[in-house]
Amino acid sequence: MIIILKENCEKPKLDELVGWLERQDVKITTVTGTSKTILGLLGDTSKIDMESVRARDIVESVRRVQEPYKKVNRKFHPTDTIVEVSGRKIGQGTFNVIAGPCSVESEEQITLVAQKVKESGATLLRGGAFKPRTSPYSFQGLRADGIELLLEARKLTGLPIVTEIMSLAHIDLFADVDVIQVGARNMQNFELLKELGHCGKPILLKRGLANTLEEFLMSAEYIAAGGNTDIILCERGIRTFETATRNTLDISAIPLLKQYSHLPVVVDPSHATGITSLVEPLSLAAIACGADGLIIEVHNDPKHALSDGAQSLTPEQFDSVMKSVKKHAAFMRKEMA
Amino acid sequence: MIIILKENCEKPKLDELVGWLERQDVKITTVTGTSKTILGLLGDTSKIDMESVRARDIVESVRRVQEPYKKVNRKFHPTDTIVEVSGRKIGQGTFNVIAGPCSVESEEQITLVAQKVKESGATLLRGGAFKPRTSPYSFQGLRADGIELLLEARKLTGLPIVTEIMSLAHIDLFADVDVIQVGARNMQNFELLKELGHCGKPILLKRGLANTLEEFLMSAEYIAAGGNTDIILCERGIRTFETATRNTLDISAIPLLKQYSHLPVVVDPSHATGITSLVEPLSLAAIACGADGLIIEVHNDPKHALSDGAQSLTPEQFDSVMKSVKKHAAFMRKEMA
Amino acid sequence: MIIILKENCEKPKLDELVGWLERQDVKITTVTGTSKTILGLLGDTSKIDMESVRARDIVESVRRVQEPYKKVNRKFHPTDTIVEVSGRKIGQGTFNVIAGPCSVESEEQITLVAQKVKESGATLLRGGAFKPRTSPYSFQGLRADGIELLLEARKLTGLPIVTEIMSLAHIDLFADVDVIQVGARNMQNFELLKELGHCGKPILLKRGLANTLEEFLMSAEYIAAGGNTDIILCERGIRTFETATRNTLDISAIPLLKQYSHLPVVVDPSHATGITSLVEPLSLAAIACGADGLIIEVHNDPKHALSDGAQSLTPEQFDSVMKSVKKHAAFMRKEMA
Amino acid sequence: MIIILKENCEKPKLDELVGWLERQDVKITTVTGTSKTILGLLGDTSKIDMESVRARDIVESVRRVQEPYKKVNRKFHPTDTIVEVSGRKIGQGTFNVIAGPCSVESEEQITLVAQKVKESGATLLRGGAFKPRTSPYSFQGLRADGIELLLEARKLTGLPIVTEIMSLAHIDLFADVDVIQVGARNMQNFELLKELGHCGKPILLKRGLANTLEEFLMSAEYIAAGGNTDIILCERGIRTFETATRNTLDISAIPLLKQYSHLPVVVDPSHATGITSLVEPLSLAAIACGADGLIIEVHNDPKHALSDGAQSLTPEQFDSVMKSVKKHAAFMRKEMA
Repeated sequence: MIIILKENCEKPKLDELVGWLERQDVKITTVTGTSKTILGLLGDTSKIDMESVRARDIVESVRRVQEPYKKVNRKFHPTDTIVEVSGRKIGQGTFNVIAGPCSVESEEQITLVAQKVKESGATLLRGGAFKPRTSPYSFQGLRADGIELLLEARKLTGLPIVTEIMSLAHIDLFADVDVIQVGARNMQNFELLKELGHCGKPILLKRGLANTLEEFLMSAEYIAAGGNTDIILCERGIRTFETATRNTLDISAIPLLKQYSHLPVVVDPSHATGITSLVEPLSLAAIACGADGLIIEVHNDPKHALSDGAQSLTPEQFDSVMKSVKKHAAFMRKEMA
Repeated sequence: MIIILKENCEKPKLDELVGWLERQDVKITTVTGTSKTILGLLGDTSKIDMESVRARDIVESVRRVQEPYKKVNRKFHPTDTIVEVSGRKIGQGTFNVIAGPCSVESEEQITLVAQKVKESGATLLRGGAFKPRTSPYSFQGLRADGIELLLEARKLTGLPIVTEIMSLAHIDLFADVDVIQVGARNMQNFELLKELGHCGKPILLKRGLANTLEEFLMSAEYIAAGGNTDIILCERGIRTFETATRNTLDISAIPLLKQYSHLPVVVDPSHATGITSLVEPLSLAAIACGADGLIIEVHNDPKHALSDGAQSLTPEQFDSVMKSVKKHAAFMRKEMA
Repeated sequence: MIIILKENCEKPKLDELVGWLERQDVKITTVTGTSKTILGLLGDTSKIDMESVRARDIVESVRRVQEPYKKVNRKFHPTDTIVEVSGRKIGQGTFNVIAGPCSVESEEQITLVAQKVKESGATLLRGGAFKPRTSPYSFQGLRADGIELLLEARKLTGLPIVTEIMSLAHIDLFADVDVIQVGARNMQNFELLKELGHCGKPILLKRGLANTLEEFLMSAEYIAAGGNTDIILCERGIRTFETATRNTLDISAIPLLKQYSHLPVVVDPSHATGITSLVEPLSLAAIACGADGLIIEVHNDPKHALSDGAQSLTPEQFDSVMKSVKKHAAFMRKEMA
Repeated sequence: MIIILKENCEKPKLDELVGWLERQDVKITTVTGTSKTILGLLGDTSKIDMESVRARDIVESVRRVQEPYKKVNRKFHPTDTIVEVSGRKIGQGTFNVIAGPCSVESEEQITLVAQKVKESGATLLRGGAFKPRTSPYSFQGLRADGIELLLEARKLTGLPIVTEIMSLAHIDLFADVDVIQVGARNMQNFELLKELGHCGKPILLKRGLANTLEEFLMSAEYIAAGGNTDIILCERGIRTFETATRNTLDISAIPLLKQYSHLPVVVDPSHATGITSLVEPLSLAAIACGADGLIIEVHNDPKHALSDGAQSLTPEQFDSVMKSVKKHAAFMRKEMA
């Protein structure tokens, strides 16, 4: 940690600060210039609260030198984490495609979509039972019934299922789910993250609309701190001034997250853009720069979908996208799981 | 609702769309140009899913003409809502200042701060018992004990208390709290909002870091839809590219929210900037453009605060800010509650 | 300047870097921890290129401790700059309102608006002769003729004139203009800024749509470096994800710019929001937090304006806004110039 | 164009608006609902100023149905434009890599880099003679001498040269340059764009840091409106809240620009991220989603570069990136020019 002091700071205040820091077991080196003084802190600074330092009126700015995340930090865990999901592997050389409808709507719908996406090569089935909708008047999901229908679709197809949790109150309903998804709007629902840290299931954690990569990894750290490191990171677009797409896919997040962390990274081109014609080009871009998988919305009848129809592919469109995806993954030496 | 169709769209697809719309009880007027066709929909379009419309390949774009929120919409409720909090009024000509520490840390601390802010003219006491922190290794709040301490501080000072809820699992602990705060990170925690819709208590709803005013009002609508319209909206800064301040206070939100909605609007200059020297100028700016109140962080010893020290005022600084605030509120003909 | 090195960096590379830095006349203090090494540089580091430092593979990050701007920095010039414009003073306790149409359209129009805004209390006249328009098919301004008409309006009313320059090629046409405006889109047109550094006229410099306050002050520094410190800074909104307003007025910029710099700061509520009903509340907010003036669009017939009609006030609306502005400025102890 | 009127608008004001619109030769269809009225305008609405419409107090909002750009619009020119640069083709199935240093620094430097990048497969040489720098105290480029050195490097290697113009005042110096670059900061320097519309040379137009795709295409339209359609669009990252990268590469811009326009699109991974390790993954992502080329910074000695060293590759790193780029371009059936 580096502390830059304001010009001509008063000696007693400086001594008080230095004393307070020393009591927290760090070694301090002082760099004194003509007008500025800098304190360099060495040792375990992770417990020193930056805000408390910044609060002193002699302090101009403070900066951490080491990343605040540890368990999800590649520096301390150089090897790629492989998340095992009911026998399938996610990460390190494998390539998985999670596909399915935005919302589970009926047995017929989810069964049909599950079979279709499996035929085209999807390796996991997604489907929303609990749906976070901007409007209280929109369809809110089939909830418990939706999870039942997903479990039936799994029985039929063998595809492990991924579905979103919106509240701790529902956690018992997720007992048989294969991967629990945390949506973008809940990325900083810290009470939820803590609980998922000891739920014993793989977590698909989506990046929040306005969260930095560091905040994203800190949310993963919340889960990991509870003992669960079976975490799949998902880049799904951030909010910017551009209105041509629903969000802006931050493609750089893929190679950066893989540099910073050992966790697998998947990309959601459907939510990132909200435009079906962009799903294929962005899927290929994601593969080309190192993603470990994709999550794609597919609906048997997008125009009658109860949510997110505009960004859903038909099974035929998905089949066509998968042909390109498989070729591209093979070219990048990724093995379709 | 207006639907703009792509050029030269096929007749059978157009007929299918028109038929589907008509079955949803709306009246359709078709505007046919040389290359484009536009459908104007009239009647109650609030149940028509825009995404389903957008999903059709003959549709270029869709736009709602009416706001998707109703219960919090000024058009349908032209009179200002006054939220009553234990005998005090918030909104319509009154001016309230909610002050207190970021986190409740000890009996001594909260008691001292409560007395000080009361002396300076604060009308409600804030204090965090459950704290949303980016890092799992940071202080997470005193939790249930924190609420106990707030209740004691209320007994001592008579100030109603405002404190943040982070999970439905804790709702019983909030039985005696005067105002329940929903933090920026939970603004779209829809399951929480639904429950607060029938909790029988006033809600202080903070705008999310990357949420539009429309999304903000839709979250208020979630609470109102459950029957609770005692909602105080709080602008607390949005995330932008500017790094000089922690967030960017969207000052225009104040007059706009008051145009769009009948709910009272307060401003949090502490979180909006993270810089103590900006609390006074931004407080005055908020008053000047119509805010109904402020929420300000005050800590007896910011440099030893367990959270957010850098943006907390000392009681002395707060007292000085309050002198200006009172004069300005009086000048704007707002009555200090 | 502080340089944080990567872990376990190689000795020869470190020696090369230290030698290169020493040849640039700075004193280096090395802070060596268990895993990280930090270099603290003291002396005049303004000529050291941060990018060159960052380019070395042993460097993790670099940070400047001192602001890169000097001539516009309050640290080196603690007293407020007063910009004198044809006898009027802008800054330090005065309050100026610059008003007029987006575009000069005809003699009749500019004369009428000039007289009206003068009667209401405006102290300078604005009007666009050269217009930066997004579309090549939109009205591009009356250009040289527009400047002639502004000069006539000045003769008639005595109001000094402010008008925008779009290209160095036109500079001779600005010989009799009182204040040259640099628009948001040209804030980083560095060749233009350099030339304005020795034009001998006050400059109204608008902040770019996506520029930080530091970049804004660096652009002012370009002008000041040429010898011209008669610079008026203008906050006019930044681009964010929010679409309810044309831009987001960064109200914090006002007190911050006044902390960082000695230059006067004015606010443009018309461009910041694009909504006439917000001009009054934002004007008052700007005054309340320390602005030295306002720039407001006024048009005799907004609905037939050739540009920006939607955000222009009528003379009657402007007169009403000015009544509030004058009271508020008086309350804040600002003297209407 | 669609005009949505406010509720219960007054008849005389509506008649005035309709009359004014009719005089501009458009056909109007009125859609009258219970509370709202909508006007649908058909015909050539490109000359109707949206702002003037919005300025009327009976208008709630206005929306264009047709894109405001024509000459660069794929709807009117379905075939891909191929820009010919001194015998080389850019666009439609070809793949070009423009490489070279941020700044031209010396004959030795530019000659060496030019030869190296040519050997590795670059097809054009880039190099800055006029440099837009945030600080007036940074190296501003060799200016006229820099262009001379580029011309010598071209003679030696045969590579056509691309270099940035910063002011119309320098245009004569660009007489022998192959491609004139317009930088991100000048994307809306409309006077410059107009002049380049009849300069008879291909233009590389970079997207502004905070400009939408529509604004980007409108700037291209400025050049095209002057008669010059030899325009290469360049996506180089936009400004967002994320600080891990210098900018955020908007990868979706590539397929969208190619849908909207017939112009070729290249990507600048160096400026988009400012991080050398991201140049290769983002280059491959750009190829995978349809880019027609890349522009990459290469410097013989990045750590002593006079500008942008941190994001420059060494010739050895560039050679390695080019091996992957060539394979990927071949896989995507793009022909290296």
